[in-house]
Amino acid sequence: MFFSSDNWAGAHESIAQRLLAESAGFASAYGTSNLDKKVEVRFCEVFEREVAVFFVATGTAANSLSLASVQRPGGVAFCHSEAHVIEDECGAPEFFSGSARLVAVPGESGKIDPAKLSAKIASFPEDDVHHGRASAVTITQATEIGTVYSLPEIGEISGIARKRNLALHMDGARFANALVALGATPAEMTWKRGVDMLSFGGTKNGCWCAEAIVFFNPDQAREMPFTRKRAAQLFSKSRFIAAQFDAYFENDLWLGLARHANRMADGLRVGIGASNSARLAWPTATNEVFAVVTTAAAKIAEGRGAKFYEWPVPAATPELVGGNETLIRLVTSFATTEADVDGFLKCLAA
Amino acid sequence: MFFSSDNWAGAHESIAQRLLAESAGFASAYGTSNLDKKVEVRFCEVFEREVAVFFVATGTAANSLSLASVQRPGGVAFCHSEAHVIEDECGAPEFFSGSARLVAVPGESGKIDPAKLSAKIASFPEDDVHHGRASAVTITQATEIGTVYSLPEIGEISGIARKRNLALHMDGARFANALVALGATPAEMTWKRGVDMLSFGGTKNGCWCAEAIVFFNPDQAREMPFTRKRAAQLFSKSRFIAAQFDAYFENDLWLGLARHANRMADGLRVGIGASNSARLAWPTATNEVFAVVTTAAAKIAEGRGAKFYEWPVPAATPELVGGNETLIRLVTSFATTEADVDGFLKCLAA
Amino acid sequence: MFFSSDNWAGAHESIAQRLLAESAGFASAYGTSNLDKKVEVRFCEVFEREVAVFFVATGTAANSLSLASVQRPGGVAFCHSEAHVIEDECGAPEFFSGSARLVAVPGESGKIDPAKLSAKIASFPEDDVHHGRASAVTITQATEIGTVYSLPEIGEISGIARKRNLALHMDGARFANALVALGATPAEMTWKRGVDMLSFGGTKNGCWCAEAIVFFNPDQAREMPFTRKRAAQLFSKSRFIAAQFDAYFENDLWLGLARHANRMADGLRVGIGASNSARLAWPTATNEVFAVVTTAAAKIAEGRGAKFYEWPVPAATPELVGGNETLIRLVTSFATTEADVDGFLKCLAA
Amino acid sequence: MFFSSDNWAGAHESIAQRLLAESAGFASAYGTSNLDKKVEVRFCEVFEREVAVFFVATGTAANSLSLASVQRPGGVAFCHSEAHVIEDECGAPEFFSGSARLVAVPGESGKIDPAKLSAKIASFPEDDVHHGRASAVTITQATEIGTVYSLPEIGEISGIARKRNLALHMDGARFANALVALGATPAEMTWKRGVDMLSFGGTKNGCWCAEAIVFFNPDQAREMPFTRKRAAQLFSKSRFIAAQFDAYFENDLWLGLARHANRMADGLRVGIGASNSARLAWPTATNEVFAVVTTAAAKIAEGRGAKFYEWPVPAATPELVGGNETLIRLVTSFATTEADVDGFLKCLAA
Repeated sequence: MFFSSDNWAGAHESIAQRLLAESAGFASAYGTSNLDKKVEVRFCEVFEREVAVFFVATGTAANSLSLASVQRPGGVAFCHSEAHVIEDECGAPEFFSGSARLVAVPGESGKIDPAKLSAKIASFPEDDVHHGRASAVTITQATEIGTVYSLPEIGEISGIARKRNLALHMDGARFANALVALGATPAEMTWKRGVDMLSFGGTKNGCWCAEAIVFFNPDQAREMPFTRKRAAQLFSKSRFIAAQFDAYFENDLWLGLARHANRMADGLRVGIGASNSARLAWPTATNEVFAVVTTAAAKIAEGRGAKFYEWPVPAATPELVGGNETLIRLVTSFATTEADVDGFLKCLAA
Repeated sequence: MFFSSDNWAGAHESIAQRLLAESAGFASAYGTSNLDKKVEVRFCEVFEREVAVFFVATGTAANSLSLASVQRPGGVAFCHSEAHVIEDECGAPEFFSGSARLVAVPGESGKIDPAKLSAKIASFPEDDVHHGRASAVTITQATEIGTVYSLPEIGEISGIARKRNLALHMDGARFANALVALGATPAEMTWKRGVDMLSFGGTKNGCWCAEAIVFFNPDQAREMPFTRKRAAQLFSKSRFIAAQFDAYFENDLWLGLARHANRMADGLRVGIGASNSARLAWPTATNEVFAVVTTAAAKIAEGRGAKFYEWPVPAATPELVGGNETLIRLVTSFATTEADVDGFLKCLAA
Repeated sequence: MFFSSDNWAGAHESIAQRLLAESAGFASAYGTSNLDKKVEVRFCEVFEREVAVFFVATGTAANSLSLASVQRPGGVAFCHSEAHVIEDECGAPEFFSGSARLVAVPGESGKIDPAKLSAKIASFPEDDVHHGRASAVTITQATEIGTVYSLPEIGEISGIARKRNLALHMDGARFANALVALGATPAEMTWKRGVDMLSFGGTKNGCWCAEAIVFFNPDQAREMPFTRKRAAQLFSKSRFIAAQFDAYFENDLWLGLARHANRMADGLRVGIGASNSARLAWPTATNEVFAVVTTAAAKIAEGRGAKFYEWPVPAATPELVGGNETLIRLVTSFATTEADVDGFLKCLAA
Repeated sequence: MFFSSDNWAGAHESIAQRLLAESAGFASAYGTSNLDKKVEVRFCEVFEREVAVFFVATGTAANSLSLASVQRPGGVAFCHSEAHVIEDECGAPEFFSGSARLVAVPGESGKIDPAKLSAKIASFPEDDVHHGRASAVTITQATEIGTVYSLPEIGEISGIARKRNLALHMDGARFANALVALGATPAEMTWKRGVDMLSFGGTKNGCWCAEAIVFFNPDQAREMPFTRKRAAQLFSKSRFIAAQFDAYFENDLWLGLARHANRMADGLRVGIGASNSARLAWPTATNEVFAVVTTAAAKIAEGRGAKFYEWPVPAATPELVGGNETLIRLVTSFATTEADVDGFLKCLAA
């Protein structure tokens, strides 16, 4: 009953076996091997266009270097108030981009409010050297709180960004979970809606370490080989990242893993919706479930070995959680079993 | 016959199998798992004292964050003219340390000349705000050209550094190869000779991705958890690095792998020394061999599939290489076989 | 009728004459002249304790280098939502501090709300590597909107900062105006209330270019000589900054100039308070006056040559300004005359 | 007898008087005043083309921001081994350019050797992510040791830079001294010979603080307004820099001051050449004179109040200075008098 995070899971067996198979033999280093090249082509197929792909070690790196690639002196990047980039990366995006500022834009359901984004951007007039310069917008898909931007919503954000020539970045740490939730293609959820660059996360969905930056316009990636090397993110045995992605894409394994994780979350959602000692804090569509549970039920679950995190009550809605209640986050993954889900739901019924 | 670099090899089978074994199950993320903790203790045992250990993705990261940890405004770090940090890391050490300058110190056999180091340090008087500030010394063990500092040589460098309170860093991308070449213990080759922090490399010696920064005085590592996270080097599934090191240390696997690589290089050294179409460019003690070969022999070797790099002729000794000769570098690894060595030597005799 | 900003004024005659007098002769460079030393002693007298003083070119530099001096990896500094450091310095504080993040704390009257500051600091738990690290608090005295922190208010903020060992910085671009408004001594308004470092501004109060960073604990300034030089802020002919401060302090010129500016603002406040076509937007105590004026009156004033800026209506109080009204900022300085004030007030009565 | 440095002098009377005259009145801030605009036009006239001009506080800032403007990730800038940027700016160029590396190129007479520059550039192949990227060349005119690049020499360097699309920067801290030494026009010594951007120094030649960055292709300056503001180099009362330049250019004052300084140095050169207790260390053409004097004569001069610096004996020519001799640097300026020169020469004859 491990619901703490999808990064508590290990590696999916197919990916682990592929790593083992790849361990023998020799290949050229630093991303130049045949396998690296093959996987780069695979990315182009997945996204139905030529893309430039850069493997990196962590999601933090993918986000930070993406934003760094479009940074200008005094630049600011707009993100949701609760975005990972501003909340949980210890200032890495600012560090790598030469001190760009992240400007928080609020919005319901973990999504940037388009009107508020427009207003915030407008508060940085072009050519005003004092305030700083609007440079980029970054959205998280799926969001930090388990919701997803619909395709039109992504289009609306990109339209706003386009008006001021701001680059649009998507933090796709849980890209696959959002994709299968929407039933969209990778192309539809990204460049066809105006996304310029993507942090494509594999780690949370069954890899042990596989993150990539994807540029939909390869011309914009010209500095990235140097940016990545200088950022200490160029693996010598890069082909082991490639191997993970190779297995990840094979026979649409990645989509299957994400569907499984989402389905396990569906189980939690249904069970919690029907429970007397718990309720959904807000609707989610992916592999994250936020529930208000009685403190008693939470204790029982913990006593039976369930792992999950308490979640801070959103400042805007203090009434969400009552006196003897707790807000918790439950995250499923490729490794979550129906037994885990049932086990947890039984705690609520105890 | 892959002699291009030790990072062209894959992962040793024991390490690959351990990764597979570890792929199942759940564990807490970001370096907090039991396995992470176990391996941290293992490092303390290996180095016979309490150390602070930080896993990172690349040797570039290990070197850069080590130097960053002792950086001060306007600081300079002294390294050998041919050191990896100054030659091959695209400015990463400067980037992570907030623009510290690397100052090259020459020296024979790839090793910093102590007298020249003293003189160079003296050219940065304390309290002179114009020149910059001596902050650190970094040595590479084994060096870029296959030699090793003897224990007294390390002690001499550290004595010079100590006089001006400069931190001493060791780039140990090939730490194990140097260690077994000297027949020393890890403690003797580091903190007992005044080394403050070490880039401990596992990747070139049989891991697929396992690098660690080791602080011999854990007090000096207080900022490092934040420095590493901000540098996008904190793996969520950190335990997979730990797993590699766990297997690496088990039954002294790491020392055995390094001994094997060095022995394969011995085979090359002996064969080249006896050859009519090649000679050793300079003596080496580890898994790198530099040879002057006739261009004809080099062509034959390449024709038979041997992989190796041409090496630039050192500016100081142009006479080293004659008109129809080529300077080449041959690197062995845990994966090199005697058949590879023999095959290469046969090319020279062809 | 120049009320746009106090930095539209030139230099006070005494200061200008002193610069002229100092122009002859030779003196050692880079802050080492006798005059530099004399003025450093003068700062100690003004603040009634040993202080470390560093002249810099701009208020932006003073603020940025102050914050840089206490910065740590992943660090965050807390400031008021409308503070100059976050609104008007193009990211300079982040840039110089190696990408520290500025976190905005709201509060009425342009002043940080102590309870909200405590809550915000608490959201950055110590030893959490993800969120970032609470490092410093910065307050602006006088504030951006013409108000001042009382001495107990400063003490309360510093008490909160102290609990988490955060450095407390004061942006004193209008230090003198606040000082005479409170009737306090420089010591009382700073270190006696827990301020660690001060941006001491002379430019807005009659110098042409004289800004200083003052450390109340000189031990904390040990890196600053290098930090300043590396920041390109060490003037070769530093004595010309010293000369300005020398004249500035002589016979308490600086206090007289600030009193004059505040008194001119008093004249505006009284006149506006009595006007039918204008009212004070909020009470201010220093040389800044914020007024809601009829758009007609504003036009008349502009027509007669008055210079001032429209000010954005605070988002929290849209009702402050009616349909045919405008919010304007009026700033007085040492160079403002009673005729200027009368002239402006007459526009309101026209 | 102040020969320590040209920055020990104060401000020329015409410039000091202009500052006084400008001290009254009001003008818009941050470089937007009429005077700022007027002086920008003046720069265009001086350089006979449209240029973009940015005032900054120090020569360090001018050099650092110039180099920052053409910096790329992993970039390197080539400079002479003894250049101010690498020797005397505490790492500021690296800091402002996001950790660009300065690579020293040797050369006689303080000037970059073109063949060695070509070779050094060639050691950074394009598209090699490991070594770093050739980005810029910077030359110092006049050089640190009093010599000047001839116009063809500048052209040769720019030709080499152009081949690899490297920007060419000129550090003109002593631009005027070099200009009058060559008898060239500002245009001839810069853009007509391929210089892209110039640090135009006024401080050492009679201003108290007036430095400017000049872009000969204004398109390349598009980021500079933000770069400068973020670098804390945008003066609020910028017009006082403008006022200095206005007086500096008026009636070619600047050329007259430089000619005077050079002529005073000529006096020293002639006198030293004829002396028995001194000789010129090497020929110089501007306001710096390097002399080998008997230690006895140096002592006498110091005893009579002469101020000058001992200069380190160049490592390449230890034989330059005998056992009881000292190498000294003598710098003249607009403020040096013939009496100073005569006084010093008399010490040599004593």
